[in-house]
Amino acid sequence: MRRVNVGLLGCGTVGRGFVDLLHHERERIRGVAGVDLRLTRILVRDLDKQRVGIDRRLLTDRATDVLDGECELVVELVGGTTCAGAYVRRALAQGRHVVTANKALLASDGTDLFALARHSGVRIGFEASVCGGIPIVRALQHGLAGDSIESISGILNGTTNYILTRMEEAEIGFDAALRLAQNRGFAEADPTLDIDGHDAAQKLRILAGLAWGPATSVKLRIAGIRDVTRAEIEGANSRSAAVRHVASARRIAGGIELRVERRELPLGHSLARVKEENNAIVIRGRAVGEIGFSGRGAGSLPTAAAVMSDVIELARAS
Amino acid sequence: MRRVNVGLLGCGTVGRGFVDLLHHERERIRGVAGVDLRLTRILVRDLDKQRVGIDRRLLTDRATDVLDGECELVVELVGGTTCAGAYVRRALAQGRHVVTANKALLASDGTDLFALARHSGVRIGFEASVCGGIPIVRALQHGLAGDSIESISGILNGTTNYILTRMEEAEIGFDAALRLAQNRGFAEADPTLDIDGHDAAQKLRILAGLAWGPATSVKLRIAGIRDVTRAEIEGANSRSAAVRHVASARRIAGGIELRVERRELPLGHSLARVKEENNAIVIRGRAVGEIGFSGRGAGSLPTAAAVMSDVIELARAS
Repeated sequence: MRRVNVGLLGCGTVGRGFVDLLHHERERIRGVAGVDLRLTRILVRDLDKQRVGIDRRLLTDRATDVLDGECELVVELVGGTTCAGAYVRRALAQGRHVVTANKALLASDGTDLFALARHSGVRIGFEASVCGGIPIVRALQHGLAGDSIESISGILNGTTNYILTRMEEAEIGFDAALRLAQNRGFAEADPTLDIDGHDAAQKLRILAGLAWGPATSVKLRIAGIRDVTRAEIEGANSRSAAVRHVASARRIAGGIELRVERRELPLGHSLARVKEENNAIVIRGRAVGEIGFSGRGAGSLPTAAAVMSDVIELARAS
Repeated sequence: MRRVNVGLLGCGTVGRGFVDLLHHERERIRGVAGVDLRLTRILVRDLDKQRVGIDRRLLTDRATDVLDGECELVVELVGGTTCAGAYVRRALAQGRHVVTANKALLASDGTDLFALARHSGVRIGFEASVCGGIPIVRALQHGLAGDSIESISGILNGTTNYILTRMEEAEIGFDAALRLAQNRGFAEADPTLDIDGHDAAQKLRILAGLAWGPATSVKLRIAGIRDVTRAEIEGANSRSAAVRHVASARRIAGGIELRVERRELPLGHSLARVKEENNAIVIRGRAVGEIGFSGRGAGSLPTAAAVMSDVIELARAS
């Protein structure tokens, strides 16, 4: 049994989920994948915080303890772009595979990081960066690789979908629905990235890159849901339709067009049926037609499961 | 650019789709995947049949011309188990990767063939064997590998779903709906495998094997749709429900349980919404919750696209 050492950067919601998932799945992964995954060190912000079930000796508040320690694979779950970017660069430069859920980092520094990975002969796994547990990155990289993708559309942000469907079903206004989302832990205290559409746009850009490669020209149009009213929701419902925050991408002459906007969809439309914090993506291929994917797009364990799928694949390749 | 030679066995519906798809996608695949796929020989039954757009010099009616010729990869699309099994064994023994859409062969000889592939240091790609263009095999092999799968359920046979939804919407009986399916080319002249549930059971067995590995004990219960009546369909509709032919798998003490049967599902159920010849699969994982996949589960081009995805992956690995 080959042992593969994994260094973990960040032990917040997803990081904690990853530690728990590894604890639960380690034996199964040994049997199925033939690799024994071992956590070497865990970077945390606060060494004194109580963390039930985690060996305190693994914890450190110095990133170099993780990055320069003995590991073949680094999992980056600190978020943000400044520190995370520096950590990922260092890990790649030292010839370690990196797995990340950090869509903001990929959106801002992706081109550089993938070039650095190629140069170092290692890989970056980022299944968890788009739509949590839904294996959409692999579907575009491999499962649909035989076909020309014509368009991508989806509900890529769970917070805005939760707000819109709560407004629809509980007959409440935007502010009340946003507070519910915050109470349920979906929306951050500052939910700007979600409700203004930038989070969905980052994910859409990653999916478009997988479908069509680097684009020379990107036409981007983003509209959020901050100004949605009860009258808009009720008007749509009276027309047997529903308001959804839809991200869509297609090729246009000379480049690609990315749009994130509210749309009124007939109730029979597959995206109109997506409720609560769920995500869904519809890929249209020239040969395969429409292929749909749906599931929980965020949350500790679903996102950790996506991270783990990359960790297993890279551990087997390392 | 690395050239990879592909031998093709069979040029029926899917085989012809594969040739057309390769013609259309070859340049794109060169650019994206860095491999130049070249068809070396094509095994056909009738050398004299007109085949527009196919170089006649590639055609042969002797399997050995394909199998013993110069190729790194063999695509098996002849169907059946006797000849196909012999061809696949010979290809694997000679150290060639094999891509197949042949679920019957995998159901009957899978264990032997995978052992032979391992022994020869090559791989078998079988994404196309379950649900055509829906990348469900890869999802279970890789995308959901980080999680423990709890259950699988789905509509895995397009013909029975077409018959049930036609009976529902056109208010016709089973025999008339079956004739429609045959006229549309979904059902074979002898549709027994479809309507008695054996086709769905073969696919379910493949998915269960991917989720849980070889099972020591399999409890199998198959019921078809041959005896479905208009009264049953109408009764369900009057209760805001729909009749669907559902395949489901779960772990039970000491093994797995596989069931293929008619079920009355509430209209809000994701599988009740699957219409016409479409397929859908819902995977429940301990960490990820429910992940849904949907799309066209059969047909020339969707199935060919799934074959191509495996060809690309194995060509890159060869």
